[in-house]
Amino acid sequence: MDIKKYMLGVGQKARDAGRIMANVDTARKNAVLLKIADILERENRILLAENRKDMDAAIANNLEAALVDRLEINEQRIVAMAEGLREIAALPDPIGAISDMNYRPSGIQVGKMRVPLGVVGIIYESRPNVTADAAALCLKTGNASILRGGSEAFHCNQAIAKIIHQSLTELTLPQHAVQVVATTDRAAVTALAQLKDYVDVLVPRGGKGLIERLSREATIPVIKHLHGVCHTYIDDSADLAKAVAIAVNAKTQRYGTCNTMETLLVAASIAEVFLEKVCPLYEQKGVELRGCEQSLKYWKAMKAATAEDWDTEYLAPVLSIRIVKDVDAAMKHICAHSSSHTESIVTESHTHAQRFLREVDSSSVMVNASTRFADGFEYGLGAEIGISTDKIHARGPVGLEGLTSQKYIVLGDGHIRT
Amino acid sequence: MDIKKYMLGVGQKARDAGRIMANVDTARKNAVLLKIADILERENRILLAENRKDMDAAIANNLEAALVDRLEINEQRIVAMAEGLREIAALPDPIGAISDMNYRPSGIQVGKMRVPLGVVGIIYESRPNVTADAAALCLKTGNASILRGGSEAFHCNQAIAKIIHQSLTELTLPQHAVQVVATTDRAAVTALAQLKDYVDVLVPRGGKGLIERLSREATIPVIKHLHGVCHTYIDDSADLAKAVAIAVNAKTQRYGTCNTMETLLVAASIAEVFLEKVCPLYEQKGVELRGCEQSLKYWKAMKAATAEDWDTEYLAPVLSIRIVKDVDAAMKHICAHSSSHTESIVTESHTHAQRFLREVDSSSVMVNASTRFADGFEYGLGAEIGISTDKIHARGPVGLEGLTSQKYIVLGDGHIRT
Repeated sequence: MDIKKYMLGVGQKARDAGRIMANVDTARKNAVLLKIADILERENRILLAENRKDMDAAIANNLEAALVDRLEINEQRIVAMAEGLREIAALPDPIGAISDMNYRPSGIQVGKMRVPLGVVGIIYESRPNVTADAAALCLKTGNASILRGGSEAFHCNQAIAKIIHQSLTELTLPQHAVQVVATTDRAAVTALAQLKDYVDVLVPRGGKGLIERLSREATIPVIKHLHGVCHTYIDDSADLAKAVAIAVNAKTQRYGTCNTMETLLVAASIAEVFLEKVCPLYEQKGVELRGCEQSLKYWKAMKAATAEDWDTEYLAPVLSIRIVKDVDAAMKHICAHSSSHTESIVTESHTHAQRFLREVDSSSVMVNASTRFADGFEYGLGAEIGISTDKIHARGPVGLEGLTSQKYIVLGDGHIRT
Repeated sequence: MDIKKYMLGVGQKARDAGRIMANVDTARKNAVLLKIADILERENRILLAENRKDMDAAIANNLEAALVDRLEINEQRIVAMAEGLREIAALPDPIGAISDMNYRPSGIQVGKMRVPLGVVGIIYESRPNVTADAAALCLKTGNASILRGGSEAFHCNQAIAKIIHQSLTELTLPQHAVQVVATTDRAAVTALAQLKDYVDVLVPRGGKGLIERLSREATIPVIKHLHGVCHTYIDDSADLAKAVAIAVNAKTQRYGTCNTMETLLVAASIAEVFLEKVCPLYEQKGVELRGCEQSLKYWKAMKAATAEDWDTEYLAPVLSIRIVKDVDAAMKHICAHSSSHTESIVTESHTHAQRFLREVDSSSVMVNASTRFADGFEYGLGAEIGISTDKIHARGPVGLEGLTSQKYIVLGDGHIRT
């Protein structure tokens, strides 16, 4: 198989399908999503059988238990997948929405219309539910999509693709509106990232390695979802009860997510009383604490943090703790070590809250709330294709709007420029 | 001079200055713009003398007359430059604006705050007024900027840079908020396009060659301002008087701009009567007409168009004309040949207008208006850094907003995720 040639064909078919999908009305787009949901549930035996093949191979290849778990599909997960599709069907259609329509002194009316991006390439790892989810988000926004899932989930992803194609065909929509790459060759990823004439944007969902590789290789724009080194700063004027609740929640509610706090910054004047309250709670939950020199005084079980700790996304029950002079020192630390994902301040000071909100340059900046809220569903986007740590195009949780663009529309009545 | 090392230093200084500029209040940003305007007018002799050096070199190097004209600065042009700065000072400050602040079921409040991009690189050709203009747009949006003007305008650009630095210093703002690259070595452009850690976006304003080269070489996002192969389609239900006025204006109001019409599409049923009216007007203005086979019948002085004509941006008094069956055929031609800049339909049919607006995939789509309106000032953006033919981040005329991003802000009162 000539991978480059194969991917070129995939790109061309996607471009053609995208031109059709851009103008499909809302009812038909929703109908195809509901149809996919129904068939997924009806044909769950096929899905389970194909998933079994992937699972057997994964076990034979000694894949890590956590990865095997992410790979597994069961009846309950299929129902959840179908429910996800129905939720996307129920969201308002962003396409064609017109905003900011105003008359100009010249007499023309100028506004903006929301339109699809065209063709979206999505690269993701083992979880097969992303196949249905990503396809649905792109269908809803009138985009054609090219999906490249993890090779471990190959059989299950192809089975989902078949169901999507069947649904598209039943609604006389182009099959190539959703294409799931039919090869596990890694060269397909590079080829996809360079289909400049056929793919408008690339959304990688996966490890740091994948995203850095793509940023290097891609000749098309990438919506980067980089790692999260998230901070919570406990200000000198923090309410102690709120501070303890937020610090515990931000670290321990889930360890493996990108919006989990990795470093806790504490104002020096409140450090002793705060750490004495919070450290036992971390200990109860089995969180390993790595502190700056000053903080070691306040809690015996703390290890000394190394310089590397301040830049590490643990994704594990480990937390680094640093005592800082004040809000300025906290923001300086964040500026130097944050991955620009999510930071939170706990404070009762209006002035400090306003400064933190304005001055911290991250995709989500919070006051008196757990960093774990940085999420498309929590923000009310309805669904999420990823969390962008970029500043261009989309920043923070990316929902349907991130898969669209706006064009200018102009209405005249024979107007000419003088 | 080690260009790479020099540009790395420029990038680092820009990043530091950008962090400060992001939090400068509106009054000080406006004050520095007004200060630059005042000094430009007061020190116009220095500017004229430096420009004279560039002009002499250009004439000695046998530069084209049109380029020499674009290079020239006179008292009137300096006043216009200063006025442009004052207009940007008078625009509302987009930075810090909060929108879509809503309560979520969890109790947190979520909204968006408009923020600078950080560091903006701008690469442009001979006109020295762009130096003042681009610097001002970036200052207003709290960005640091790295400006690389045409080598022909080197002395004048450096003189403008000096005035900007003097103004920044007088307001105790960082000088490096605006840096004009102090070398004419072309390697500086490549180096700038690869300052991934220090530059957030690149805005090239110039010929197709420059932009294609940058798209290839850049490792940072580029807001592309590509060429304009703009179309006007005269529908079978067009009002003849509006059609003639718009067709003449779109081609002849100015020849060298990217929003000038290059191809005129005419519905077959209206072709004879329309072309008989419009062709003599083109002839009067000295526009060379290149027509499809069918259109040659209606006007003797028409040359036969070649396949290449349909993809050519003439930037000159040349127009290609094609007769098409109907609105579908017109949109098919546009899809195949347009550069996705600006297209207009002239029609009295509501249905055709709606279809054209929805289905044509260009940065500006118009009904009964001249394509010449596609411009930041005409759209009410107040100023324009370029016209993007991309779909990612900014599309169409790019004003202040295109130089900004939005971050999410979250307000809680001790909220944790459950």
